[in-house]
Amino acid sequence: MDSRVREHAEVIVDHSTSVEAGDDVVVSGSPEAEDLVVAVMELLGERGANPHVSMGSDRAMRAFLRAADPEEFEPPAHTEALFEASDVLISIRAASNVNERSDVDPEVNAAHSATRKAVRDVAMDRRWVGTQYPASGNAQKAEMSTEAYEEFVFDAVLKDWEAQRAHQEQLVEVLADADGVRIRSGEATDVRLSIAGNVVRNDYAEHNLPGGEVFTAPVVDSVEGEVLFDKPVIVQGREVLDARLVFEGGEVVEHDAGKNGEVLTSLLETDEGARRLGELGIGMNRDIDRFTYNMLFDEKMGDTVHMAIGMAYEDTVGEGNERNDSAVHTDMIVDMSEDSTIEVDGEVVQRDGTFRFEDGFEE
Amino acid sequence: MDSRVREHAEVIVDHSTSVEAGDDVVVSGSPEAEDLVVAVMELLGERGANPHVSMGSDRAMRAFLRAADPEEFEPPAHTEALFEASDVLISIRAASNVNERSDVDPEVNAAHSATRKAVRDVAMDRRWVGTQYPASGNAQKAEMSTEAYEEFVFDAVLKDWEAQRAHQEQLVEVLADADGVRIRSGEATDVRLSIAGNVVRNDYAEHNLPGGEVFTAPVVDSVEGEVLFDKPVIVQGREVLDARLVFEGGEVVEHDAGKNGEVLTSLLETDEGARRLGELGIGMNRDIDRFTYNMLFDEKMGDTVHMAIGMAYEDTVGEGNERNDSAVHTDMIVDMSEDSTIEVDGEVVQRDGTFRFEDGFEE
Repeated sequence: MDSRVREHAEVIVDHSTSVEAGDDVVVSGSPEAEDLVVAVMELLGERGANPHVSMGSDRAMRAFLRAADPEEFEPPAHTEALFEASDVLISIRAASNVNERSDVDPEVNAAHSATRKAVRDVAMDRRWVGTQYPASGNAQKAEMSTEAYEEFVFDAVLKDWEAQRAHQEQLVEVLADADGVRIRSGEATDVRLSIAGNVVRNDYAEHNLPGGEVFTAPVVDSVEGEVLFDKPVIVQGREVLDARLVFEGGEVVEHDAGKNGEVLTSLLETDEGARRLGELGIGMNRDIDRFTYNMLFDEKMGDTVHMAIGMAYEDTVGEGNERNDSAVHTDMIVDMSEDSTIEVDGEVVQRDGTFRFEDGFEE
Repeated sequence: MDSRVREHAEVIVDHSTSVEAGDDVVVSGSPEAEDLVVAVMELLGERGANPHVSMGSDRAMRAFLRAADPEEFEPPAHTEALFEASDVLISIRAASNVNERSDVDPEVNAAHSATRKAVRDVAMDRRWVGTQYPASGNAQKAEMSTEAYEEFVFDAVLKDWEAQRAHQEQLVEVLADADGVRIRSGEATDVRLSIAGNVVRNDYAEHNLPGGEVFTAPVVDSVEGEVLFDKPVIVQGREVLDARLVFEGGEVVEHDAGKNGEVLTSLLETDEGARRLGELGIGMNRDIDRFTYNMLFDEKMGDTVHMAIGMAYEDTVGEGNERNDSAVHTDMIVDMSEDSTIEVDGEVVQRDGTFRFEDGFEE
């Protein structure tokens, strides 16, 4: 077995979920990730944990969803019981074909996902991590050979996460008591927002592996200006290019796109919260140096910021501040590597992708 | 997809487990069986059931067991919670290599199995079925090509189970109020035992798919005589050939074997119950016409009887009768196709594999 797979397993078991003797652990994922499941299971044996392997099948789930009547969907009490009785949940994504569910009615997908909310809430309350195994379908989606994609994934995952945490903490400190954030990039992006009172989180690969972002929630009504998202936005499997949003009083008042504009329109019309921002994130994982159509990686890319339309995470909203709620949470990315700045309370903290606490920063 | 896989799924969902709308169903098995998992999931969608797919990995379980300290094994509370909250359990075996656990210490395997007793008890209390998908490793073990093995499996599984039930019920009626059973085969087998007061079960593929046997428990002290088991007996992955047991007062008082006799000795020395019989079964699935080193099939083979050393199933022991208890339950098979009779209370009910209620029976 590739020694990097064993190292990946070590990060999962020891860093992300801190497995201890006696922990009841669920290992879910896809059979395509079997090597990583084997490596994780060996470590769970060494740590004295108690595993339940529960791999799924995209083909099987597609067959179920196409045959089922969404009006008969019920919350899965048995899955919830499994998670409820567990200490640690390890979820490993991998696909030989990322389009396996592309011919499932989006409304059926959405209805099925909605019945699983209680399961997700229980899961979020455990020690949990979601990670990626470099399977051929994911490599294909990234437009890479499987071997090059393996290298990409392992570079992003096998980091000194304590060093990464400390590095990112410098940005957390800048943002922690800040009010106004202004993001400019090229001619098309100049947006101001407040994060006053909200909570700035340091993602160093506890729940997402790879991790590598600093994120918080904008104050709901504070967003003003316009943003061109120059990386593709994926909405229910469809690609919106060059999405442009104009904000007034926190709300999107104008929008267009270079491709699939109508998909963007329908996203923004989901509900009231879908016209407001729920997240501002700053990517800081410099080993993620390309867009791979996989948000687990894309949103942590170095030299980028992302904003999410829709739902704000509870742990990013300060007491007394409003939390934007919505059925959607769609991340959208701006390249910050050239002709770009992030200003915090009037001071430039990042120019052309380089932070003020890094070498090469130009005042 | 092979249409026989869809038919197999129909037998599982509609005959063996009678899935209904709203049932919480766990589908476990191996990724090698994905086609059948897909077909089962499609039917679960059509029936309005609520599925949890939970495939395992022999490689991963081997890695866990080799790394673990058996003294740290604990009953898996999360697996038990999953089963407890389920109505139906569908378990699909399939292997690309049936020897995946051959380098796990047998004592570790046994210790791990022991911690799962509560899980098995919960499972037996649900609607459950165990079945086989014709994977390449299972075909190899059967010394068959994969395609020929597929045909073998589907012939054994895709039967008119109501007709099979009715056919087998004729034997159940013969045995139901019987006392003495005598089994003779060739020169080497002549054994008498009582089944008085015990319960005769008709296996028509509710819990085992394929099904196809009639079985009960011998009265514990009643077994007298000797038996040559002329089909291989598999004990912890090792093959005992031509095992011969001599019984007095229900107990094995003499034994030998043509190969691996010491494995047979150690089996009989497991505990006191391992020297007594826990089951007498009569194979009645004539589509199982060869030995494939897979007890799910072998014990139902037409023209055979089997006796199990060790534990008797609770549902075969009549009120007031003693139940033989043991940590083991090892089925051992006698070929009855030639020079053989089964007598019940002095009357021949099977001669050379043909029952008295079948054409061609010679009085």
